[in-house]
Amino acid sequence: MSYSAAVAGASGYAGGEVLRLLASHPDVHVKTVTAHSQAGQRLDQVQPHLHSLASMPLHPTTPEVLSGHDVVVLALPHGASAPVAQALATSDPDVLVLDIGADHRLESARAWTDFYGTEHAGVWPYGLPELPGRRVGLSDARRVAVPGCYPTASLLALVPGYSAGLLEPEDVVIVAASGVSGAGRAAKAHLLGAETMGAMSPYGVGGSHRHIPEIEQGLGWAAGRHVQVSFTPTLAPMPRGILATATARLTPGTDATSVRAAWEAAYGEEPFVHLLPEGRWPSTGAVIGSNHVQVQVAVDERAGRVVACCAIDNLTKGTAGAAVQSMNIALGLEETTGLEQEGLAP
Amino acid sequence: MSYSAAVAGASGYAGGEVLRLLASHPDVHVKTVTAHSQAGQRLDQVQPHLHSLASMPLHPTTPEVLSGHDVVVLALPHGASAPVAQALATSDPDVLVLDIGADHRLESARAWTDFYGTEHAGVWPYGLPELPGRRVGLSDARRVAVPGCYPTASLLALVPGYSAGLLEPEDVVIVAASGVSGAGRAAKAHLLGAETMGAMSPYGVGGSHRHIPEIEQGLGWAAGRHVQVSFTPTLAPMPRGILATATARLTPGTDATSVRAAWEAAYGEEPFVHLLPEGRWPSTGAVIGSNHVQVQVAVDERAGRVVACCAIDNLTKGTAGAAVQSMNIALGLEETTGLEQEGLAP
Amino acid sequence: MSYSAAVAGASGYAGGEVLRLLASHPDVHVKTVTAHSQAGQRLDQVQPHLHSLASMPLHPTTPEVLSGHDVVVLALPHGASAPVAQALATSDPDVLVLDIGADHRLESARAWTDFYGTEHAGVWPYGLPELPGRRVGLSDARRVAVPGCYPTASLLALVPGYSAGLLEPEDVVIVAASGVSGAGRAAKAHLLGAETMGAMSPYGVGGSHRHIPEIEQGLGWAAGRHVQVSFTPTLAPMPRGILATATARLTPGTDATSVRAAWEAAYGEEPFVHLLPEGRWPSTGAVIGSNHVQVQVAVDERAGRVVACCAIDNLTKGTAGAAVQSMNIALGLEETTGLEQEGLAP
Amino acid sequence: MSYSAAVAGASGYAGGEVLRLLASHPDVHVKTVTAHSQAGQRLDQVQPHLHSLASMPLHPTTPEVLSGHDVVVLALPHGASAPVAQALATSDPDVLVLDIGADHRLESARAWTDFYGTEHAGVWPYGLPELPGRRVGLSDARRVAVPGCYPTASLLALVPGYSAGLLEPEDVVIVAASGVSGAGRAAKAHLLGAETMGAMSPYGVGGSHRHIPEIEQGLGWAAGRHVQVSFTPTLAPMPRGILATATARLTPGTDATSVRAAWEAAYGEEPFVHLLPEGRWPSTGAVIGSNHVQVQVAVDERAGRVVACCAIDNLTKGTAGAAVQSMNIALGLEETTGLEQEGLAP
Repeated sequence: MSYSAAVAGASGYAGGEVLRLLASHPDVHVKTVTAHSQAGQRLDQVQPHLHSLASMPLHPTTPEVLSGHDVVVLALPHGASAPVAQALATSDPDVLVLDIGADHRLESARAWTDFYGTEHAGVWPYGLPELPGRRVGLSDARRVAVPGCYPTASLLALVPGYSAGLLEPEDVVIVAASGVSGAGRAAKAHLLGAETMGAMSPYGVGGSHRHIPEIEQGLGWAAGRHVQVSFTPTLAPMPRGILATATARLTPGTDATSVRAAWEAAYGEEPFVHLLPEGRWPSTGAVIGSNHVQVQVAVDERAGRVVACCAIDNLTKGTAGAAVQSMNIALGLEETTGLEQEGLAP
Repeated sequence: MSYSAAVAGASGYAGGEVLRLLASHPDVHVKTVTAHSQAGQRLDQVQPHLHSLASMPLHPTTPEVLSGHDVVVLALPHGASAPVAQALATSDPDVLVLDIGADHRLESARAWTDFYGTEHAGVWPYGLPELPGRRVGLSDARRVAVPGCYPTASLLALVPGYSAGLLEPEDVVIVAASGVSGAGRAAKAHLLGAETMGAMSPYGVGGSHRHIPEIEQGLGWAAGRHVQVSFTPTLAPMPRGILATATARLTPGTDATSVRAAWEAAYGEEPFVHLLPEGRWPSTGAVIGSNHVQVQVAVDERAGRVVACCAIDNLTKGTAGAAVQSMNIALGLEETTGLEQEGLAP
Repeated sequence: MSYSAAVAGASGYAGGEVLRLLASHPDVHVKTVTAHSQAGQRLDQVQPHLHSLASMPLHPTTPEVLSGHDVVVLALPHGASAPVAQALATSDPDVLVLDIGADHRLESARAWTDFYGTEHAGVWPYGLPELPGRRVGLSDARRVAVPGCYPTASLLALVPGYSAGLLEPEDVVIVAASGVSGAGRAAKAHLLGAETMGAMSPYGVGGSHRHIPEIEQGLGWAAGRHVQVSFTPTLAPMPRGILATATARLTPGTDATSVRAAWEAAYGEEPFVHLLPEGRWPSTGAVIGSNHVQVQVAVDERAGRVVACCAIDNLTKGTAGAAVQSMNIALGLEETTGLEQEGLAP
Repeated sequence: MSYSAAVAGASGYAGGEVLRLLASHPDVHVKTVTAHSQAGQRLDQVQPHLHSLASMPLHPTTPEVLSGHDVVVLALPHGASAPVAQALATSDPDVLVLDIGADHRLESARAWTDFYGTEHAGVWPYGLPELPGRRVGLSDARRVAVPGCYPTASLLALVPGYSAGLLEPEDVVIVAASGVSGAGRAAKAHLLGAETMGAMSPYGVGGSHRHIPEIEQGLGWAAGRHVQVSFTPTLAPMPRGILATATARLTPGTDATSVRAAWEAAYGEEPFVHLLPEGRWPSTGAVIGSNHVQVQVAVDERAGRVVACCAIDNLTKGTAGAAVQSMNIALGLEETTGLEQEGLAP
C-alpha cells in the first residue's frame, strides 16, 4: 500500500528536503504541497531540483488543504504548527503529523516560555529514536516532534556518556558549526553568498540560542538530572552540514576504555549512527545528503575531559531525514525505508 | 534476480560515484572492489561516505579478481581498460563491461592518436542514449564506452540543433566550467583546497583538451558532416558539476520558434534531460548528485547565433550515472532503475 | 597635499571597495560617505571590515552633502548619477566626478536606449587607460565613466588583436564567469549563500546583458568598425573575480607569432596588465583584492581562432580600482598610487 | 633608510604572505627569497599573485644565501630554524631574525619535548605585543618567535579575563575553525579542493595538537598560574581565517560589567585588536588579508561562563602580519607600518 502525504511549507529548505526524500520513498507518495506566499506557483519554480515533482501546484497552507492524507509534514515557522494540528485532530483523527518546527519538542512549559516567549503548545513524542527509550515511544505515534538540527548533533555526540554515568553535568561545552541552509531561505543581506562564502562567524552567543533547552532536555533524560550546557553555534561557509564538538568533564575514575565501550554500546546496532574506527574523525563531507551520522570520541587525559564530535547533514538527519525515519517507525515500516542514500562525496 | 558487479578503480572519484549509485540499485549488488595502491585497505578508508559498503576489502586490479561477475565497471586511467577487457573476453564471454575511461569512445583511430598519442584500442557502443540512434545500440551490448563529462554536457546542449539542421558547422564555441572533482583525486598542489576555493582558471586552452574529438564526433553524428569546435574548459570553485555554454551560428532562415521546437522534440520523452521552461536557466545546483540534466536554449538575434546551456553533475550523468543508465539498458532493466535520486539542493 | 573625497553609495560592494582602496591612498582622504537607506548609521555597521573608517557617519546622498570635495565617487544605481553630476557642475565646477555606474559609458544614445530603456545622459571619458588612446583622454578630465566589470575583462582580453588587425569582427564569443559580489548586495533569495555555493548558472543569455554594447563599443574602437559579440555571463561560486574566455576568428594569414607579438606590444609597458609567460593561464585567485590583470592568449589552429583569457577582480580593477587609477591620472598623480597591493592568495 | 630582507621558505603559504606584506612595506625591501625544492625557479612560478616580485629567483635555503641582510624571516618546517639562526649569529651578529616556525616559542623544554619530541632549541621574545608586557620585550629584539595562528586567536580571546582575575583556570574549552591554508601547501589528497569544499572536520582531537602548550603558556602568563585547556581545532571550507570560540568559568562574583571592562581595558589602545560594539560578533570575513583582529565577549549567566570569540586571518595576524608587526617594533618603526590594509570583503 502507498501512504499519501502532504508537505506544508514546501518552498523552504526543510520542506524541500522532505520532498526530496519522499520523492523516492517506496511506500509514500506526495499528494499535496503547500506554501504561503508562493501558493499558485508550480513546485519547480521554487524547488528546481525536484524534477519528478516539478509540475505539482503549490496550494495555500490551510487545514482544508492538508486534510485527507495519511501523513502530514509541517515545515512551518514555530507557532504555526499547533493550530494546524488541532484542526486535523478533528477532521483527520488518524493522520500522522510530523512537526519539523520547535513547537512540540520541550516538556517544560517554562523552558519554552523562557526561550520562545509564547505559550507552550504541549509535547509530542521526540523523533530521535537513537536516544534511550525514544524508539518505542514513536511506534504507533500519531504526533511526532522532529528534533532540532543542533540538538540532534549535540545529543548524538554526548548522550552515550551520560547514559553510562561517565560525565559530569556541569561545564559541558558544545561548539557547533552549521552550513548556511540552517539559517533558512528568507532573503537577508547578511546571508548573501558574497557575505557567507569564505567567512565564519558565531551567533546567539552567551546562552541565548533556542536549541539550548532542547539539548539540556535530551542530556538530562540520559543523565537523570539537569545538565548545564554552554552552547555556541557558528555559521560555516558551506551549504549543508553540522559539525558539533562537545566536551564534558569525566567523572572520577573514568578511563578511555570505558568511554569507548559506552559509545560502542550505544550505537553498535544503530543503522544510521556510525561510531568511527579509532583515529578517524567525522566529516560533514561524508554524510551530506544522507541520514547517516558520524561520531567519534576521545579522552583528553590532560584536561580530564571527553571530546566527542558528531557530523550530520542538518537538512537530512537534522531535519527531514529524522522526519522520515520517525514516520517509518510510526507507520510500522522498516526504519531505513527511503533513507538508503549514501552521503554525497566529494 | 540480482546481478553481481565489480568496480575497478574504486578509490577514485569516478569509482566512488559508481559505488554510491550501485549501493542503492535494486537489481545489482557490488561483489568486488579493486584499487591499485590502496589494495588491502577497507573501502571506508578511502570512501568514508559509503557506509553500507564500509567493510568491503579493496583487492588489486587484476583480470583474475575481476572475473566471475555479471557486470564489470572500469574506472581506470586511459590505456588500462583494453588489456582488462581482452582478458575478460576470454574468461567471461558474457560479462557486461562498462569503460569509464576514454579508450573506446572514438571511432577515428587518427583522432585517438592525435589527442592521446597511443594506439587506438577500438570503439565500443557509446553510452549516451539521448543521442539519436544511440539507445538502440546499447540494447544487449556487452561493451559500453561511457562518455566523457565535458562531451556529455556539450552534446546535450547542441545536438538537437544539428539533428534538425539549424546550425552551421563552423565557429562553434563551447566554454565549460567544471567542479574540481573533474580533475581527479591525485594529490597535486595546484588542486589543494586553498588554491581552488574562490578561484577560476582555464586550462587546456587552444584546442588541446582530449575531449575535443569526442565532442566533434558526437556533433558530427548529428550534423552528418564534420563540425569544428573551439572548446575551452575552466576549473570552477565547486566540488561537482559542469556548466557548458555552447554557441553556434544559425543556418539562414532559422528562427527562435524552430529552435525551440527542435530542442523540445529531442528531449520531450527523455527521463533525465529537462528542457527548462522558457526564461529559466540551468544551474548545476539543481542537478548535483543526480542523473538529471538541465538544458536551455536561446537565440541571440543580434549575433545570429544560438546559445545553449547545459548543467550536469560531472560525476553522475557525466560519469557514473551514465554508466548505470547504460548498464540498465544493456541488461534490459528499466532505464531509470537506481537513478531516481533527485538533485541535492541547496 | 591631500585631496578630499566623498563616496556616494558607501553601503554597497562597489562603494565599500572604493573606501577600502582610498583608506590607504597616501594622497586622498575620505571626508564624507553617503548611503540611502542606511543614512544615520556608522560605517562599520554596513562595512565591518573597514576598521580605519569605522566611526564615520553615513549621510544621505544629496548634492549638498557631496559638495565641497576635490573628488566625488558615485557608486549609485544607473540613472542616479546624471542629476548629481549636474548639480555639482554648478556648485563645484572643479570637482573630479568618477561615475561607477553605467550612465556615461556609451557614446551611442541608441545603444543606451536599446539596452537601458531610458534617455541617454551623455558620454564621459572612459576610464580604461590600457585601451589605445584612452589614457590621454583621462589627463585633466573632470568626469570619468568607470568601465563595467565584464567589459574590462572582455576588452583587455581581445583588444590587442583588434588593434593589430588580426581578428575578424564576426562570430566573436565571450563567456565570462563572475563572483557573486557582481550581483550586488541587495537581499535576494536566489543569491543566498545556500543557493550560490557550489552552483554555476548563466543569466542574461541570448544577447540581453547590458554590458554588451559597452564591449562592442570598446572592440569597435580598436577595430575601426563594428564588432559583433555573443556574450554570456555566468555566476560562479566565489565572492569575487571575473574570468573572461574570449574567442574570435583569425584573419587570413595570421599566425601564433603575430598574435603573441600583438599582445606583448599592447601590455609590455602596462603596470597592471600582465601577459603571462607562455603556457601559464590566468586565475582569478592571483588577482583578488588587487588592481592587477592576468591575460593569456593562444591560437587554436584547428578552429582557426584565437582564445584569450583575462582574470580580474570584479570589484577592484573591474570597478573601484579602475576608479582610483583613473582618478590618479586625472589628478596628475602616479597612476599606481594606492594600488600597490598584490593579489590576496591563497 | 630601507632595510633589506631575506625570506626563507618563500614557496609556502606563510612565506608567500610575508612577501605580500613586505612588497608594499615602505621601509623594507625584499632582497632574497629562498626555497627548498623550487630553488632555481622564478618566484612567479610558485607565487603567481606577487606581480611586483615576479622575476625574483628562488635560491636554496642556506646560511650563506641568507647572510648579508638586515632582516631574515624564517618560514621553515619546525626544527629547521635553530641551525640557521646559529649560523647567522656568527656571520651577521646584528641581523633581526623572525622565526615563523614553532622552535623558539615555548619556555618549557619539557612541554616542547612532550609535544614535538625533539630537543628544545630555546626561547625567543614572543611576537604577540598585545599580551601584557610583551611589547617591551620586542623593542630592540634581534630574535623573535612569531606566535602560532591558533594561539594568537585563542590568547587574544581570553587573556583579558585572566589578566583581570575573572576566569577560573580549569575547564577552559577552546574550539577553533581554521581555513585550509593553515594545513600548508604540501600536496595531500585529503586537502584537495574536492575534499575540503563544503566539509568541516576536526583533527588533533583529545589534547594532542602542538599549539596547546603555547596556548597554556600564554594564558598562564596572564593568570600567574597554570591554565588547563581543552583545545579542538577544526578544518573549515575557506582558504583563510580562524574563528576561535573560547569559554571559561567565571570566578565567583564576576559579572558582565566587569567582564566588559576588562576586555575594553586590554584592547582600547591597540591598533589591530578591535573589541566590537556589544551585540556584534566577529567574522573572519571582516579581517581576511589584514592584520586586524575582531574580538567579542559575552557572559552566559545560566552556565556561569564567559564566551569569547576571536577572528583573525591565520596567514596575516596569525603568521606573517605578526612577523611584520614584531619587525616594526624591533626596528623602531611605527608598529603599523606596512600593515594598513583593511580586510578584504566581501
